[in-house]
Amino acid sequence: MKGVALKMNYKFSEKVSGLQASAIREILKFTADPEVISFAAGNPAPEAFPTEEVGRISADILKNDPILALQYNISEGYLPLRDTLKERMAAKGCFNKDNDDLIITSGAQQAIELACKVLCNEGDTLIAEAPSFIGSLNAFRSYNVNLVGVEQEEGGMKLDVLEDVLKNAAGQKVIYVIPNFQNPTGSTMSLEKRKGIYELACKYNGIIIEDNPYGDLRFAGENVPTIKSMDTENRVIYVGSFSKILAPGLRVGYACAPKDIFQKMVVCKQVSDVHTSIWPQLICYRFLTECDLDEHFKNLRLIYKKKCGLMLENMDKYFSKKVTYTRPEGGLFIWATLPEGSDMMGFCTKAVKDYKIAVVPGTAFMINESDKTNSFRLNFSTPTDEQIVKGIEILGGMTKDMLD
Amino acid sequence: MKGVALKMNYKFSEKVSGLQASAIREILKFTADPEVISFAAGNPAPEAFPTEEVGRISADILKNDPILALQYNISEGYLPLRDTLKERMAAKGCFNKDNDDLIITSGAQQAIELACKVLCNEGDTLIAEAPSFIGSLNAFRSYNVNLVGVEQEEGGMKLDVLEDVLKNAAGQKVIYVIPNFQNPTGSTMSLEKRKGIYELACKYNGIIIEDNPYGDLRFAGENVPTIKSMDTENRVIYVGSFSKILAPGLRVGYACAPKDIFQKMVVCKQVSDVHTSIWPQLICYRFLTECDLDEHFKNLRLIYKKKCGLMLENMDKYFSKKVTYTRPEGGLFIWATLPEGSDMMGFCTKAVKDYKIAVVPGTAFMINESDKTNSFRLNFSTPTDEQIVKGIEILGGMTKDMLD
Repeated sequence: MKGVALKMNYKFSEKVSGLQASAIREILKFTADPEVISFAAGNPAPEAFPTEEVGRISADILKNDPILALQYNISEGYLPLRDTLKERMAAKGCFNKDNDDLIITSGAQQAIELACKVLCNEGDTLIAEAPSFIGSLNAFRSYNVNLVGVEQEEGGMKLDVLEDVLKNAAGQKVIYVIPNFQNPTGSTMSLEKRKGIYELACKYNGIIIEDNPYGDLRFAGENVPTIKSMDTENRVIYVGSFSKILAPGLRVGYACAPKDIFQKMVVCKQVSDVHTSIWPQLICYRFLTECDLDEHFKNLRLIYKKKCGLMLENMDKYFSKKVTYTRPEGGLFIWATLPEGSDMMGFCTKAVKDYKIAVVPGTAFMINESDKTNSFRLNFSTPTDEQIVKGIEILGGMTKDMLD
Repeated sequence: MKGVALKMNYKFSEKVSGLQASAIREILKFTADPEVISFAAGNPAPEAFPTEEVGRISADILKNDPILALQYNISEGYLPLRDTLKERMAAKGCFNKDNDDLIITSGAQQAIELACKVLCNEGDTLIAEAPSFIGSLNAFRSYNVNLVGVEQEEGGMKLDVLEDVLKNAAGQKVIYVIPNFQNPTGSTMSLEKRKGIYELACKYNGIIIEDNPYGDLRFAGENVPTIKSMDTENRVIYVGSFSKILAPGLRVGYACAPKDIFQKMVVCKQVSDVHTSIWPQLICYRFLTECDLDEHFKNLRLIYKKKCGLMLENMDKYFSKKVTYTRPEGGLFIWATLPEGSDMMGFCTKAVKDYKIAVVPGTAFMINESDKTNSFRLNFSTPTDEQIVKGIEILGGMTKDMLD
């Protein structure tokens, strides 16, 4: 009977039945074509990976402590890594020893999903910047929350809109933000907006998830204090990651959370994957404690500063003046916006199909995929310098053909 | 103001507010005392880890293909590993090329959690053997399903009870079973019970999650066909793992699922941890394709057969004849039962506090922790031979003091 089975009509849970694979994945399919120049990914530059150090550390671990690397461990994460991160985060004001604890997660993605799972019932209010990171938005959607976007202006979320949403929201109120070099816009939230969001969270009993995967990748401008560093009421879950500073394939992230929230996240982590794979945790620990981090971060910032500068320089040179775009102080992304009334989706589709240049249409990052946007996201960390120069010239030509 | 923060009263989601850390964890705290002999864990024997092979393979990967190991990859899992597993599973009748697909997960635990997330709304019916594996039960609880236990008799679940539950259940009906060397009982489901459960799933439109982490660890008796191998209607999700045949610290498992279910699991996997850490996937792939698996499994079975035999031999010798226990044909666990009316919990507490022998009270595996049981779980894979002999003699003395 195998192979001629009945066509089953599966009933899926309400929280996942409408959930789609990330739209970026569809674009990335085109990028399997080696002729396509991809500005669509969010991958760190391969030359930024400390491959030699990882090889050396790994060999040492597997020679001298293989059972530690291969046996079960505890759900909270490898203790020396947690202790090291607690110290580092405390020094940055992102960990309060009296009130917080720190959990190691399988990438920042898992920290965000766990936070949503422990805090939100279906229908509770999850407020995000509009636009925001699709991976987080999909995690929230997968718990069937009421996802509400707050439009951004110079410096961050419009605080009056945020207040309206908080005032009228029923149930739990969680605010998700990426204050540094936001994905997808590349913009940085001002100190005033950070303070304003925190004050509104206090006023309306909200919880903030502060996602900071790119914080160490600042290559221009001045550092702005984290929201977590203002957290006198234990309302902020700070999420960090090794994906952009060491390597994303390791899947190691972490959350500094108020102790009660931490405890629930640990229980949910245990039922999700028991613990994060140990070898990657050991690599992260040894990397933090044995390597010259200042030198490594300096090197990363140089790589990204150069690539971002190269892309902006060529956008200035080749793009129609009617296209506007952000000038990021860090991170991996530039957000470009076509003039009102442009066919953004047609532009992106034509770019990949006819010109073999992949970018991500802004709709992927909207709170509702039907929300209107004329923007698209460009990534400068993954392509080579040659690809940046060639691809931006072609895209620029397309903008001029369309707009000038 | 730091350190004197207001005491927040957090509101947690209904699905997690009652969720507790595994009771086993509480017992395991005692086992941090090096004088405690622990029969409480579920860890594979450290001598079963192919540490040299892992070291060799890892060095080769990090020398010749470091970027593959460190960069992002796709949520479905590393393609060559998936292809290899599909072939192996097809050869065992656990993968139907026309109807199934295979996802790599962060341990079998994640496969089980994802299956529950995609299939069940809060209140849907999740049927498990009573008792069953606490990690899976807690995963189900974390989605607030209606968890129903079906008592086991010789050979497996009581089918008339299962039919009653299925007949009266509202919403989605999912049946979770561990047919081989079940955790915690160590017992194996008969072919008749497997057929019976599958037929009832067909009759009442249920979905089966068949969890088989110990299947390759059969050291006695005859192989029994999997339920998945009977699946003509695409109702079975088969879950496998590298934890017990290679190393649990890697956190690599997989699910063979009907394609529509697979697709939803991939989307949920993406929002959970993007993908499973790549280095562990590469280790599993190279291990499957380069190492002598027959020899490795033979070696594993010898280790576990010897340890199980040693524990049973000493239980036969030292335990009161009033205690009954299973005689497993594989896996890691023996399930011992005190006579009706015994104070099982008092026995387990006294064992660890006064005699420094840790076992897991059966209540940990009950569908409701208040369900009555006189049983406790013994693990034979983690302790040394000396610990088995010494610990069982002490436990046996305790049973005689109490019962004879």
